Amino acid sequence: MNTIGHLFRLTTFGESHGPAIGGVIDGCPSQLKLDFDFIESEVLRRKTAQSPTSSQRKESDHIEWLSGLLDGITLGSPIAFIVRNEGCKPEDYEFLKDVYRPSHADFTYEKKYGLRDWRGGGRASARTTLPIVVAGAIAKQVLKEQGIQIIAEVTSMGDVEQARKEGDTVGGIVECCIKNVPVGWGEPMFGKFSAELAHAIFSLPAVKGFEIGDGFALANMKGSEANDTFINMDEGHGTGDKGRGTENIRITTATNHSGGIQGGISNGNDIVFRVAFKPIPSLAKPQQTVNRAGESCEITIEGRHDVCALPRAVVLVEALAAMVTLNMGMMAR
Amino acid sequence: MNTIGHLFRLTTFGESHGPAIGGVIDGCPSQLKLDFDFIESEVLRRKTAQSPTSSQRKESDHIEWLSGLLDGITLGSPIAFIVRNEGCKPEDYEFLKDVYRPSHADFTYEKKYGLRDWRGGGRASARTTLPIVVAGAIAKQVLKEQGIQIIAEVTSMGDVEQARKEGDTVGGIVECCIKNVPVGWGEPMFGKFSAELAHAIFSLPAVKGFEIGDGFALANMKGSEANDTFINMDEGHGTGDKGRGTENIRITTATNHSGGIQGGISNGNDIVFRVAFKPIPSLAKPQQTVNRAGESCEITIEGRHDVCALPRAVVLVEALAAMVTLNMGMMAR
Amino acid sequence: MNTIGHLFRLTTFGESHGPAIGGVIDGCPSQLKLDFDFIESEVLRRKTAQSPTSSQRKESDHIEWLSGLLDGITLGSPIAFIVRNEGCKPEDYEFLKDVYRPSHADFTYEKKYGLRDWRGGGRASARTTLPIVVAGAIAKQVLKEQGIQIIAEVTSMGDVEQARKEGDTVGGIVECCIKNVPVGWGEPMFGKFSAELAHAIFSLPAVKGFEIGDGFALANMKGSEANDTFINMDEGHGTGDKGRGTENIRITTATNHSGGIQGGISNGNDIVFRVAFKPIPSLAKPQQTVNRAGESCEITIEGRHDVCALPRAVVLVEALAAMVTLNMGMMAR
Amino acid sequence: MNTIGHLFRLTTFGESHGPAIGGVIDGCPSQLKLDFDFIESEVLRRKTAQSPTSSQRKESDHIEWLSGLLDGITLGSPIAFIVRNEGCKPEDYEFLKDVYRPSHADFTYEKKYGLRDWRGGGRASARTTLPIVVAGAIAKQVLKEQGIQIIAEVTSMGDVEQARKEGDTVGGIVECCIKNVPVGWGEPMFGKFSAELAHAIFSLPAVKGFEIGDGFALANMKGSEANDTFINMDEGHGTGDKGRGTENIRITTATNHSGGIQGGISNGNDIVFRVAFKPIPSLAKPQQTVNRAGESCEITIEGRHDVCALPRAVVLVEALAAMVTLNMGMMAR
Repeated sequence: MNTIGHLFRLTTFGESHGPAIGGVIDGCPSQLKLDFDFIESEVLRRKTAQSPTSSQRKESDHIEWLSGLLDGITLGSPIAFIVRNEGCKPEDYEFLKDVYRPSHADFTYEKKYGLRDWRGGGRASARTTLPIVVAGAIAKQVLKEQGIQIIAEVTSMGDVEQARKEGDTVGGIVECCIKNVPVGWGEPMFGKFSAELAHAIFSLPAVKGFEIGDGFALANMKGSEANDTFINMDEGHGTGDKGRGTENIRITTATNHSGGIQGGISNGNDIVFRVAFKPIPSLAKPQQTVNRAGESCEITIEGRHDVCALPRAVVLVEALAAMVTLNMGMMAR
Repeated sequence: MNTIGHLFRLTTFGESHGPAIGGVIDGCPSQLKLDFDFIESEVLRRKTAQSPTSSQRKESDHIEWLSGLLDGITLGSPIAFIVRNEGCKPEDYEFLKDVYRPSHADFTYEKKYGLRDWRGGGRASARTTLPIVVAGAIAKQVLKEQGIQIIAEVTSMGDVEQARKEGDTVGGIVECCIKNVPVGWGEPMFGKFSAELAHAIFSLPAVKGFEIGDGFALANMKGSEANDTFINMDEGHGTGDKGRGTENIRITTATNHSGGIQGGISNGNDIVFRVAFKPIPSLAKPQQTVNRAGESCEITIEGRHDVCALPRAVVLVEALAAMVTLNMGMMAR
Repeated sequence: MNTIGHLFRLTTFGESHGPAIGGVIDGCPSQLKLDFDFIESEVLRRKTAQSPTSSQRKESDHIEWLSGLLDGITLGSPIAFIVRNEGCKPEDYEFLKDVYRPSHADFTYEKKYGLRDWRGGGRASARTTLPIVVAGAIAKQVLKEQGIQIIAEVTSMGDVEQARKEGDTVGGIVECCIKNVPVGWGEPMFGKFSAELAHAIFSLPAVKGFEIGDGFALANMKGSEANDTFINMDEGHGTGDKGRGTENIRITTATNHSGGIQGGISNGNDIVFRVAFKPIPSLAKPQQTVNRAGESCEITIEGRHDVCALPRAVVLVEALAAMVTLNMGMMAR
Repeated sequence: MNTIGHLFRLTTFGESHGPAIGGVIDGCPSQLKLDFDFIESEVLRRKTAQSPTSSQRKESDHIEWLSGLLDGITLGSPIAFIVRNEGCKPEDYEFLKDVYRPSHADFTYEKKYGLRDWRGGGRASARTTLPIVVAGAIAKQVLKEQGIQIIAEVTSMGDVEQARKEGDTVGGIVECCIKNVPVGWGEPMFGKFSAELAHAIFSLPAVKGFEIGDGFALANMKGSEANDTFINMDEGHGTGDKGRGTENIRITTATNHSGGIQGGISNGNDIVFRVAFKPIPSLAKPQQTVNRAGESCEITIEGRHDVCALPRAVVLVEALAAMVTLNMGMMAR
């Protein structure tokens, strides 16, 4: 369950403070000249310490490519890459060995596996999302050749500087738009484009909500308000020619309440979705919790932690959207 | 992509007005005495024409069991079942052959496959969700033996009788609660319990939003408000015994903003999620659209259509939640 | 584990004496006009009672199509079909309820599932292979449009009439040839064309050996005898043009010890493989065995049983070869 | 398609002369103290230059563990490891850039992917099987705790020293025995134990035949010779007690023509299979072939190549058998 994708697949590995994190991409088209500068720039977007909202850990984030390439060209074989974990200070986390941080995965991991890697969150650390950015950047490069663009942005966020002062954290919302997806991508029933997106996005830490198009607002609308009327894009320009085949008729919707997906399949309009992130659970202010013996105790998590994950999450949302979109395209042939 | 699940798997088939719809369940435990009465009652919950909000099609919904059973006991081999499509009136739909209903899947299916089954929505019809109810009922039966319960309800819905008068339709929200899931179910990274739920629920027609725990509201909260403090369930009752192993210590969270899932894994608290359904797109009032030749036209969809899908969707949400939960449990062993 | 295939997938269900057997085909291309006559003729090749070597059960083998079709054209949605089990005489098998037939699956099924369907072998019956023939026929039809042909034949078989007299049975060998597969089908490492064929063929009852090309004979050859020399097909005809791109150069191998597959990938030559079938384990002559209580007993299996499965297995080998080949082609795009 | 396994899964990556080869193991049980000495000793069994039959490349084969471990204990998260490719001399292979070696994968890879890694066979090199040994060793360790043993040996091999003198190579046969597998492992229909083994074994380079139990010899036997009679293991010792449940009755087969598998499911007897390897295609003596321009040419492959792959293949056969067995066991729960 550390693999995502159907034909373009990413398997990730690594814990926050183990020797390295990394990924294996299987199914990437061959003969692609990887744009390493672009990949690096995407990784930089996720990097810590880049903004006042981010944590202070110094991560080198240098990607080492291990396979699948000849002179920077993809061979069709699996592309493996690793990033070493440097600047690890496991001793900073030793006080967490026996205590469960509220709303972290400490408790659930320990109960599931019988032990847990207490060093910086282990496998559940946000650091383990780095390989997603790398694979997403490659997916974006493939999609770009097909004219498809993916752009996300933070559309809502709590007051970071106030929260920092209070030793608190904030959440927010990221909105993402996938442009120029051809009509007909997505598989009906259990492989819907929307379902694949939801699944992928919920793989990110701290995601608690996902909506497509007008989303939850649609629950309060009437059908006559929510429906997207079809229109002929060429109409009014004198090009509507009943004689030519339907193949050449360019149809779209006048509105986009559906967010570009109908019946699980892309309709050619922008695919638009929104993601709700909860606040980062690591607080500088004291919290109540229990230790492994079940005793109540207080915990204060100082050190290298973000106040808000949103700025760094943007590129992750885009990366997963890119991987899903590429898969849907490859399935549709 | 007509299959859902990992170890307990459902494959569905059928179009609204073809000979039959049905499913094949693979991976159901053997030696289970199926509770046919319960299955029938669940199917009845989904049935049309049961309430003032529902459509008028007379569906017999009689389940014919084809395999996997000996004297009503599961054999461990695939359980196949079908429901005949009766009362089909394809001629009622002939006017749809050349026109795309707004916010339906007519347009996307036709573009994807080069043709479409215009008879009552074909594969995209809500009727094709019936097999989900059957498989969900069996999953519920297995879970019930483990003490796990799943209950959903409509928590928000538009004004149905007003909409009916106006030839309009309404959407709404279904909330679902999964009780008594043991700690440790769900797979980290790309197999999170929450991601699996989101994927499954987005497989239902008309779903446009999904949130878990406090969901989108968490985006506006501070960490100190959103975090779920751990507590010892036995504390204060004199039973907190530091000497006994962690196995015997019963820990839970004082609040449940996380909705029972942390790091993708169940924490033992109730798993709570909400689903936004858009209004049914079939309207009795006239709508603008285009036909296959790209010409503007008006469409009025009279006949056997619901004003609101919510009452019938409740059992579907429960069924998918049951299948996901059972899979997570089987994965966790 | 009742599903085979990656992009063209077949899920089968049914026991020998249950209400019906059948299959669901997912991933069949849309807009294909099914050749029902061909499918029927393929099913007839598998039918019992067609030759002196076959069993006497009267099977109607009438295929009922349930979904995925509109006027006989594939819609792209799952194609479900069933065949009713008629002429069932479960009472003929009642003496098997408490005894394990030698070299049948009675013992292993019962131990695995805690119970078994004793009626005619249940899920382990050769009758459950019928859906494979249907799916294989459809796969063949798709492949035929690409010029690909699949032909199998019995190349070795015991003396049937002598065995019948003795109340005994015989095994044999089926050889299969797949013609005109383009170069480059098959996935390296764990998705080799040869490995996919081996997996599929071993899904048939009674298969105990599989070899490709010269197979086991290669173990006794030297490299200089076993290697397949590459040749230019146009050489000697004055068409060898160094100037044109490699795309236009037609290369093949002078010999075919490799059986058309090198490194798991098709090389354009005939794909040739052989399958060893053990004799049918149901004997008319008495055999020693034990019953469920562990007591020694004698068993004589009279009635409707083949002396040799080979003639009926030919179409099954072809069907599985067709499904694998179609999948490899779809993967290669 | 670079992943094998269902619940215990291995994804491999790497080319012969790229920076590194490696693997990611997903699904390994947590809390297992890895026996690194045993893993190293297994890797040593595969190592080159260990015997007169082997090639001369100096491979360091040092395993670097990247994730999934805390103090040598498995965490339940993916276990990633790499082995650097040292002693690479790509220039030794430059003469192969434009020529297809007979019975190698040069031609098929190039046609499939549009380019190929000509450095030492690239992804198709036998070196890429090293990660299989590592994963197999871990699987063996898990199985050993359950009392299951896997032992393979070379049972047939050509005359190595004679072949070396002639610049030729030889093939042979490896036989493998899996001992103490409980009754009931293996999934019917398309997940048979035998089919999974065949699939896994055909993933190894140079494999051309696979048979289980008496295999191809069964094709020439009568049912009365081929059948395995069931016996009560306790009979004759006065312990046959009709009164106790079937659970306590120990049944096995008097003979083992079936090779421990009936109906795709283990019957408790030894699982025995044989694998045919073709001779290594790299010959020191001159061979005819064609180059990329389609011109005939002669090729002589000198340097670091084995005369016979069999001694090194033994541990690979065992490793794949171990991974399949572990998966079958995990599926059976």
